[in-house]
Amino acid sequence: MTANLFNNLPEPVQEEWFNTLAEAEHVTVERIVSRGHTSPASGWYDQSRHEWVVVLKGRGVVTFEDGEEVTLGPGDHLSIPAHTRHRVAWTVPDEDTVWLAVHYD
Amino acid sequence: MTANLFNNLPEPVQEEWFNTLAEAEHVTVERIVSRGHTSPASGWYDQSRHEWVVVLKGRGVVTFEDGEEVTLGPGDHLSIPAHTRHRVAWTVPDEDTVWLAVHYD
Repeated sequence: MTANLFNNLPEPVQEEWFNTLAEAEHVTVERIVSRGHTSPASGWYDQSRHEWVVVLKGRGVVTFEDGEEVTLGPGDHLSIPAHTRHRVAWTVPDEDTVWLAVHYD
Repeated sequence: MTANLFNNLPEPVQEEWFNTLAEAEHVTVERIVSRGHTSPASGWYDQSRHEWVVVLKGRGVVTFEDGEEVTLGPGDHLSIPAHTRHRVAWTVPDEDTVWLAVHYD
């Protein structure tokens, strides 16, 4: 009935690792695991839903189209309104970074 | 623009401490800080929304009306469907327990 956010982490892989933890019509809760991954250099995330995101382990840098750069470590959270273009510029290369994201309308 | 889930913890207080971190029509993300608190002994939580909850720090026990008892430590998460009667039977008395809850339709 329960599961742990820090268990079942993937072996180091080429791509970020996404798990859906809860989902309904207007909301998705997901875990993202990165290890040195960044957003595709080719572009920005431009999401139709709002996102609330927190780093639970590791460290990452999110940059915005206007040049703002935000470093997130354990417990740091951030709200990203829909259609606010952003990317993950960096995650710590030598350990897993575990993000929890809530996407909502 | 960012805030940290482990900062601005309350001084030990009589009641649990709730902060809304993100909110929209169909979803609320909140932080709950407990220190030895339990649900009111008089009754059950009977919520109109679904809840996804994770313990980030500390330890707590959630019990359900059917007798099931679930102990949650850091990273442990649980989905509680709407109208599933439950209560917090125990939280560790000597440190803060930090919960993150997503309530959604």
